Amino acid sequence: MKINLISDTVTKPTPEMLNAMFASEVGDDVFKHDPTINALEEKLATMFGKEAALFFPSGTMANQTAIKLHTQPGEQLICDKYAHIFNYEGGGVSFNSGVSCRLIDGHRGMMTAKQVEEAINPPDFYHSPLTTLVCIENTTNKGGGACWDFEELKKIKMVCEKHNLKYHLDGARLWNALVAKNETPKQYGDLFDTISVCLSKGLGCPVGSVLIGSKEDIEKAIRVRKLFGGGMRQAGYLAGAAIYALDNHIDRLKEDHRKAKEIGEVLQNLSYVKTVEPIETNIVIFAIDENKLSQEQFLDKLLKKGVEIIGMGQGKLRIVTHLDYTDTMHSTFLSVLKSL
Amino acid sequence: MKINLISDTVTKPTPEMLNAMFASEVGDDVFKHDPTINALEEKLATMFGKEAALFFPSGTMANQTAIKLHTQPGEQLICDKYAHIFNYEGGGVSFNSGVSCRLIDGHRGMMTAKQVEEAINPPDFYHSPLTTLVCIENTTNKGGGACWDFEELKKIKMVCEKHNLKYHLDGARLWNALVAKNETPKQYGDLFDTISVCLSKGLGCPVGSVLIGSKEDIEKAIRVRKLFGGGMRQAGYLAGAAIYALDNHIDRLKEDHRKAKEIGEVLQNLSYVKTVEPIETNIVIFAIDENKLSQEQFLDKLLKKGVEIIGMGQGKLRIVTHLDYTDTMHSTFLSVLKSL
Amino acid sequence: MKINLISDTVTKPTPEMLNAMFASEVGDDVFKHDPTINALEEKLATMFGKEAALFFPSGTMANQTAIKLHTQPGEQLICDKYAHIFNYEGGGVSFNSGVSCRLIDGHRGMMTAKQVEEAINPPDFYHSPLTTLVCIENTTNKGGGACWDFEELKKIKMVCEKHNLKYHLDGARLWNALVAKNETPKQYGDLFDTISVCLSKGLGCPVGSVLIGSKEDIEKAIRVRKLFGGGMRQAGYLAGAAIYALDNHIDRLKEDHRKAKEIGEVLQNLSYVKTVEPIETNIVIFAIDENKLSQEQFLDKLLKKGVEIIGMGQGKLRIVTHLDYTDTMHSTFLSVLKSL
Amino acid sequence: MKINLISDTVTKPTPEMLNAMFASEVGDDVFKHDPTINALEEKLATMFGKEAALFFPSGTMANQTAIKLHTQPGEQLICDKYAHIFNYEGGGVSFNSGVSCRLIDGHRGMMTAKQVEEAINPPDFYHSPLTTLVCIENTTNKGGGACWDFEELKKIKMVCEKHNLKYHLDGARLWNALVAKNETPKQYGDLFDTISVCLSKGLGCPVGSVLIGSKEDIEKAIRVRKLFGGGMRQAGYLAGAAIYALDNHIDRLKEDHRKAKEIGEVLQNLSYVKTVEPIETNIVIFAIDENKLSQEQFLDKLLKKGVEIIGMGQGKLRIVTHLDYTDTMHSTFLSVLKSL
Repeated sequence: MKINLISDTVTKPTPEMLNAMFASEVGDDVFKHDPTINALEEKLATMFGKEAALFFPSGTMANQTAIKLHTQPGEQLICDKYAHIFNYEGGGVSFNSGVSCRLIDGHRGMMTAKQVEEAINPPDFYHSPLTTLVCIENTTNKGGGACWDFEELKKIKMVCEKHNLKYHLDGARLWNALVAKNETPKQYGDLFDTISVCLSKGLGCPVGSVLIGSKEDIEKAIRVRKLFGGGMRQAGYLAGAAIYALDNHIDRLKEDHRKAKEIGEVLQNLSYVKTVEPIETNIVIFAIDENKLSQEQFLDKLLKKGVEIIGMGQGKLRIVTHLDYTDTMHSTFLSVLKSL
Repeated sequence: MKINLISDTVTKPTPEMLNAMFASEVGDDVFKHDPTINALEEKLATMFGKEAALFFPSGTMANQTAIKLHTQPGEQLICDKYAHIFNYEGGGVSFNSGVSCRLIDGHRGMMTAKQVEEAINPPDFYHSPLTTLVCIENTTNKGGGACWDFEELKKIKMVCEKHNLKYHLDGARLWNALVAKNETPKQYGDLFDTISVCLSKGLGCPVGSVLIGSKEDIEKAIRVRKLFGGGMRQAGYLAGAAIYALDNHIDRLKEDHRKAKEIGEVLQNLSYVKTVEPIETNIVIFAIDENKLSQEQFLDKLLKKGVEIIGMGQGKLRIVTHLDYTDTMHSTFLSVLKSL
Repeated sequence: MKINLISDTVTKPTPEMLNAMFASEVGDDVFKHDPTINALEEKLATMFGKEAALFFPSGTMANQTAIKLHTQPGEQLICDKYAHIFNYEGGGVSFNSGVSCRLIDGHRGMMTAKQVEEAINPPDFYHSPLTTLVCIENTTNKGGGACWDFEELKKIKMVCEKHNLKYHLDGARLWNALVAKNETPKQYGDLFDTISVCLSKGLGCPVGSVLIGSKEDIEKAIRVRKLFGGGMRQAGYLAGAAIYALDNHIDRLKEDHRKAKEIGEVLQNLSYVKTVEPIETNIVIFAIDENKLSQEQFLDKLLKKGVEIIGMGQGKLRIVTHLDYTDTMHSTFLSVLKSL
Repeated sequence: MKINLISDTVTKPTPEMLNAMFASEVGDDVFKHDPTINALEEKLATMFGKEAALFFPSGTMANQTAIKLHTQPGEQLICDKYAHIFNYEGGGVSFNSGVSCRLIDGHRGMMTAKQVEEAINPPDFYHSPLTTLVCIENTTNKGGGACWDFEELKKIKMVCEKHNLKYHLDGARLWNALVAKNETPKQYGDLFDTISVCLSKGLGCPVGSVLIGSKEDIEKAIRVRKLFGGGMRQAGYLAGAAIYALDNHIDRLKEDHRKAKEIGEVLQNLSYVKTVEPIETNIVIFAIDENKLSQEQFLDKLLKKGVEIIGMGQGKLRIVTHLDYTDTMHSTFLSVLKSL
């Protein structure tokens, strides 16, 4: 039995999802003639209480499009130093939008409204870039799946309004936050100008993300998506998987969270584990005591038992639970951990 | 019966293609773990005698990536005034690569080696942009599916070598040219630095294009694709359709070409048709005599008979035959045309 | 005696101008504390009936700033195929602004309102770049110093208003047009959103151009100038020359124009001269019959007589008269021409 | 008597410098025909033991050009969080080069080789931008005129060589460091790929910076300068000032440093001054105890005595000594400080 815990992006469609995919009616989405894509976009816009939505081949493109929508070249956005848009989107913020990132030294990927406000450049001091956008990531990937305090998000919104900044949410794992914190999509739709949500992580779809926003923003987003080359033809097969997942795979994220916590508990009691970061959703970040066991040795031992996880650099390791990580795999993995 | 002739991008997978898609083994292509994507890329690299290939969500992204690979911001590329990259990719050449287009006033989208050479800016005259790339489109979309003379393409290659220019082929409809002119992919692989081929036009796949080139170029292309947000996860379902199409849908393009020619012959004999451009592949461009029948009236009459085609502006109309345009539709359409 | 006719940019300050320069009161213009720069900017804004103006180290930067002000990346501007902004600004339109140029096949660098209107992309067809700007060059450099018909400029303005396009004038040699056609700066100020004027061509200053426009545009232009690195410190010495030139060197452009015409008349009667383009201002473009005398031989013979002019490529040669081209030089040059 | 201590950029040419400017021979530098510009460029290249140099209208443009030379869009550079290129160049790194900044949390604007090495992204992990450049600022502006330890700069050079990174020095106030630390330009020329030096700060020139590097880099820099619009015509008047300053104004920086230290000593003994940062060159950064005296009150009191200094935000104030800050002004200012 192979157990892959490197990311929740590795999942493959369940038989039911596969059936839904291939039963999808399709059309040419470049002409907006794909009924399943249209249905998915409408479904998500409605869920978040927004006017419109647009399907993208990746979360990176959905985020990059949002950043382009909200900024002009030379401007600056504010985000946490752990933000995916700065660290893991290839430098796209500067490449695609000519924009720089003012990084906040937050806590587990989360910053405070006070930190945001202090990081805004004075708008009439033209030697500094004009600050025009704040980006949030919820849950935080590099922060170990941490969930933001919704009250702090509201305070940051007030800072945005006061200083005329746009507000974008990278919701690659927002579904995990909604389930973990018992929040609703509409709460987020009320707060943010644009929200990207990923279909291929916790929800288990093969491909796709969706950007949600106002009608005006989404109309502009079609142009930006075209520029990036993100317009696809009969993409309805991918949207069919997404509709199925939205109806069937959100609640079950609880299972991923439970398993992550159980893994954390086992890790905590292992002599060679130094620290385990707090576990709120489906990500476990921990460090091992390299005096007792080197990271390489540890990864190697796991691999021999059929378990794959990855290092994050700087002595940290990451485990991510997901749809394809079954109960059987779970008990096997826990045993493996205890027996190393 | 509805007959859609607006583009060859409107096709939906055949049952056999759908079965191939369904049965594809998939993995996370961002980690290069999708076996079907890998197989498709290898198959195409081999067909064209190149080292490597990379799957893209669209032909626009494949072209834009190639242009980025071969240029630096501020430089200039040479292409025909009809080129898709200048006219129909949203302004991406300048947006994504900061590059300008020197347009050649060619014939049906095709330019001569002499025209190319004359358009090169002197490299030491720094007031003009440095010319570094020549882009060809074969068949030409706006040129009515015209096929290049391969000897001219070889002469242009010599100009490129002499002046140290890169050479990219937008092969959105290259399959049509190969079939119409009885050429081989390897001929093109020998000539061009990079080639993009589309899977969703004549080949009938739902989504996707592939960029083919050297190992070094394709490795860089992965970074560029990441920047555009074109990295997809379990995209093997789309690649499965492509492998099926490469094995089964190339030869049949002859049928599309035959039908296009037959449509042209009927058009030529209609009193209200002024001109029909030469038909070499699956595209028919013609003009109607608006003194006898306005374009609007003509499109309207067709629509009432269930036939959809599109105007191209400047008094021209376009018909594109494709996989979903059956023999029955064909005889119906010819009758409709004659009876208008 | 050396006679340099390669460009009107080669002039050196007259003693009077030099006195004016070094008598200038200066300050740190980055803080807007340079009184002479401020006076120059105000003087030009007033001349053109506009709210504000900004000093630049070059006409290229003034134009590139205007283009950046009026466009977003991915958009398209319309200009004549001879336009300086496309041909001689290093590819800056795409490099600095991510914008593409739709070139018009005009007459001597001048296009018609009809041509402009036909070149506008349909704003809802997102495959084509959005057209947002029209750029005019008056006089036209590559067009041989031709002056636009002001009535046509007004018609183009109406096209701009109808289609919501901005309207920029590259007035590198606008002073020559004003003198030749007896027009006023205010006429142009009324028509254009922004106007760049050059101080170092016909006016004879050592360095500088000025961008003129609305208060809002010029405030944004300060940011763009900063991004390009065009903010200078005690630049008032340069502005002092400009104020002197505006007061003393405009009327005398007539002399340059008269001399250019006289040169043209001599050229016309030379056996080895094939064609002389119409001469309206200070630029003479002509072609020699290379069967009788090669371009190289011709340039060489002139050089030996102390006269320097330049070829423009494609068999054309260019002569530009200017402030430093004295009456004595003029009669010498005419004699030289006749005696070759 | 007005005493302006807001920056060393506010200086006006001395009569001797003005004479040198006046007497400069000039030409059209766009054609490289300005003998004084050429002499300045050669003089600086020789001083630093490099092949070539290029004159720029500003230090921002010289730095931005260097960054463009050494990077491709999407890549990342490493610099201290205080770096001028990130904080005070308008966001130009991202605007002009599409590059992001990885900021180091250094000490007074200076980072260690170890910090630099840890900040390099793994080159084969394409989700992160490729690291390709390290930028140093010496002396550090925001760091209070601090001078780098040359041994650390050599260690960083070794990191650059090991990881194939380019190495640029923003030497806006390098002259101050050379004088304060008794170092030579050649030492820096040996270490860095490119160096920008400013002529209008400590040296007291009205306008200009120079970029120094290899012949190949400087040839490319001419193209980049053209793109930014930094090519000027008869700029030799500005270069004449610079040559004078290089011959006459370097040694005297000691005077500025001495005065800065004396100001620091007085500040240290004032009851309302909380902290004074170490003073190594001509910049004094200090904080006042706002319980005793608000920043606004303090600035106001000084202004009433004819002294202008500026706040830096976050409770800090800055004083910069310079060529125009005479001995008389100095004793007056020290008395004013003591008497507030």
